[in-house]
Parts: sequence; C-alpha cells; structure tokens
Amino acid sequence: MTYCVGLMLDHGLVFMSDTRTNAGLDNISSFKKMKTWNLPGDRVFTLLSAGNLATTQSVVSLLDERTKSPEDRNPALLDSPSMFQAVRMVAETLREVIEDQTEDGPTADSTFNSTLIFGGQIAGGPPKLFLIYPEGNFIEASPDTPFFQIGEIKYGRPILVRAFQSDMSFEDAVRLLLVSFDSTMKANLTVGPPLDFMCYDSDTGQIAVEGRFEADDPALQTVSRNWGEALQSALESLPKVDIRS
Amino acid sequence: MTYCVGLMLDHGLVFMSDTRTNAGLDNISSFKKMKTWNLPGDRVFTLLSAGNLATTQSVVSLLDERTKSPEDRNPALLDSPSMFQAVRMVAETLREVIEDQTEDGPTADSTFNSTLIFGGQIAGGPPKLFLIYPEGNFIEASPDTPFFQIGEIKYGRPILVRAFQSDMSFEDAVRLLLVSFDSTMKANLTVGPPLDFMCYDSDTGQIAVEGRFEADDPALQTVSRNWGEALQSALESLPKVDIRS
Repeated sequence: MTYCVGLMLDHGLVFMSDTRTNAGLDNISSFKKMKTWNLPGDRVFTLLSAGNLATTQSVVSLLDERTKSPEDRNPALLDSPSMFQAVRMVAETLREVIEDQTEDGPTADSTFNSTLIFGGQIAGGPPKLFLIYPEGNFIEASPDTPFFQIGEIKYGRPILVRAFQSDMSFEDAVRLLLVSFDSTMKANLTVGPPLDFMCYDSDTGQIAVEGRFEADDPALQTVSRNWGEALQSALESLPKVDIRS
Repeated sequence: MTYCVGLMLDHGLVFMSDTRTNAGLDNISSFKKMKTWNLPGDRVFTLLSAGNLATTQSVVSLLDERTKSPEDRNPALLDSPSMFQAVRMVAETLREVIEDQTEDGPTADSTFNSTLIFGGQIAGGPPKLFLIYPEGNFIEASPDTPFFQIGEIKYGRPILVRAFQSDMSFEDAVRLLLVSFDSTMKANLTVGPPLDFMCYDSDTGQIAVEGRFEADDPALQTVSRNWGEALQSALESLPKVDIRS
C-alpha cells in the first residue's frame, strides 16, 4: 500500500508521500514515490504514485527519458505547452504501461494498476493539480475538492476534510499532512516513513522547499506524540452529551 | 455499508450502530442493526451486525426463536451457561445461515457474509466482548484491544485509537463514538443516522441506558458542528514544524 496527498492552496501546492512498498507483509522495502521535474522559472511538475511499483517506475522512466533525450522529445513533458497537455501525456504514458502488462487493457482491478497525483505549473498558466486513474483519464482539483489522496486514503481523510484551509501556510499544511500520515501509519503497516514532501509557491517556477521526514525525525515524532493528547483535549472541549434524557 | 462499534470499559460495555443499509447507492433504507436480549439481573446480550441484511436478520430471528419458544430452546441463548457458550451459539448460527445461502460454504468474500460484534454478561462471570467472523470463528476483546469495529471501520478508527480510555464515563464514551461516527458519515454515504446506542454497567444484569440519535438530534449536530473547530484548535496546539531547516 501507499499513501500520498496533493493539496492545492491559494498560494501554491503541497505534496507528501510515504516510501513503503510491499509484496506481502513479509516483504517490505523503501522507494521514493515522489518525482519532481523543474525547469527553473518556467515549469515545475510533481508526480506522486500509488499502486504497482513496476508500473509507476516505468511511467517515471519513460517520462524521464522523454525529458532527457532531445532527439526523443516528442512528446516531451518539458516541452508541453500547458498543464492540460502535460497531464494528458502522463496519463497516456500510464495507460500504455498498464496496457503492455495486461491482455485485457487497463481495468480498475488489475494487478498492474497505478493511480497518480500530478501537479505543477507552467509559466503563463495557473498552477494545477490532477488525479490520474489507471484507465488514463483524470480529474482536476477545484475549490470544492482542493486536495487529492491516493493509496490508503481512509484513515487520514477525516482530519483533512475538517482541518484543511486553502489559506494555510506551507508550515501549517505540512503539519496537517504529518497528522494525516501519522493517523494512517498507526493503522496500516503498509504505509511507513520516511515521508517526502515538496512545497511550490505559485508563479515562481521553482521548488519553494522540499525534504524528507525520517522515522526518527523530531518533527514527526513530536506530532505523533502530541496528537493523541491534542485529540483528547479536543474531545473534552466538545459539549457534554446527555444520554440519560 | 454499515458502521458499528463495541467498547469494553473498565466498568461496562458501550455499543453504537448506524442504521443505513443499501443495495446500491440509489436504494437505501433504514434498519436497526443492534439487538439486545435481557433477563434482568441474570444476563444481557447485545449483537451488532454488518454485512448482508438478509443474513443478519436471519441470525437474529433464529436466535430470537430459540429464545422465545421453550420447546425449541436447545440450544437457547438465554440458557447458555457462559458468555463463551453464548458466543459459540451466535457464531454457529451465523455460519449456518451463510452456509444455507452458498454452495461453497462461508468464505470471507461471499455476498451473503456478515460480521458481528457480540457482548454482554451472565451473572457470575465477567462481561465480555467478541468479534465474530462469517466463518463462525471469533476473537475476544482484551485490554490490548479494548474495542471492535465492523463495517466501514477506517474513517472512524484514528480517533478511537488515540482518544479511547478504558476508564471513561458512559457520557464520554458515547461522545467519542459520536465523533467517530460523524467522521465516518462525512466520508461514506452508506453509513448514516439514526444512530443506536446502549450502555451496560458491569454486574448489574440490566441495560444502564439505551437510546437513539436521530439525524436532527441536537447532541449529534452539536458534535458534528463543533468537531471541525476542535480539530483545528488541536492542530494549532501542536508544535510548529520547521520545514526550511
């Protein structure tokens, strides 16, 4: 399993992903599930992936190859004229890779499936955030649905639904995500640290800050340790429920 | 879907269940998923059910018949000498009902499946809480795992894991459950009010308090309305995360 989140803030984008992959509970390893492409000042793309690791690594390698070798730059992610064309290219690559693996083409329950979050900005256009399905279609974030989750989404969703605010600072957004990831990691062994994150400030064309929280990172440990207590205080702050009336 | 929880407190048991059942999102109805049997002073049993409604209704009816008609009281739930024998009877009844419906016998992915929470006390023994699987086997709650959830368990789990305390009052436990149910109902349309609850005080042999929160119940609405704010305050109470170091 995997857990990845992409947030669309008023002033930019924030991404976080775990790194645990597993083939059975007795066979776990660590892989980065976040890939960023940046032409400073011109464009930034970030891709988060959940699902079959062979599939997502192929997708990234194919996009990377297209990015790197000029003679093979058609279609090239770093040449795409708009975020819409960029996401179409990523989605098409995903569909092709899954199709290569399966006789019947990509279906929602295939073993080789993968779901992606793709976001970024190309100079001249607004920042955008997409959720890409294994079938190669995709949806775009909007003020009504300002974030996407992929992988093990349920445990970490309530806190996002209740506490996400589109005007939060990067620091507050990352802290919110740490809580959401901590809730997930406490409940599902197949989601685990280190956690990668990346923040993008709109209209800058470059990464504002990126980094990694290791399992023993003081920030991650502090959030995890204090969140139980904070939740209990929150619960106690609610009005009493009269159950005997 | 369904969401039901049984909590084992130091001083008793607390149960809560939703009432929404659905055959597709366009076909929903309301059924009570909590059934209580009580021989005052002698024994109290509560059964919560998730899964195929025909299966769980059959199980309850069979147990009820056995309870009610003296000539057919072998095996009879209200005659069982211990909680262990009582839960074996419930589990066996569940397995039989599922077996009647399926050629291949009960399997974890059968359409006719159902999972149960069963708890209560028989005078002379301690109160007990069990989780019963469709295969007819079951596990018992212990101080390490003092609560069971069935149905849509993931959204409402983080708050239970972090805020459950075995010495909480019934009022606090019901409030905790309302938050857990509210988080679930906000995310999954197939879990819905009214919510039934029941509290049992150890060694009394009778129901301490039972009731129902309708969708427009002020307590449920207050919890739902205030929880977002309480969560945001909880988040703000956490130490700042320094993402730029």
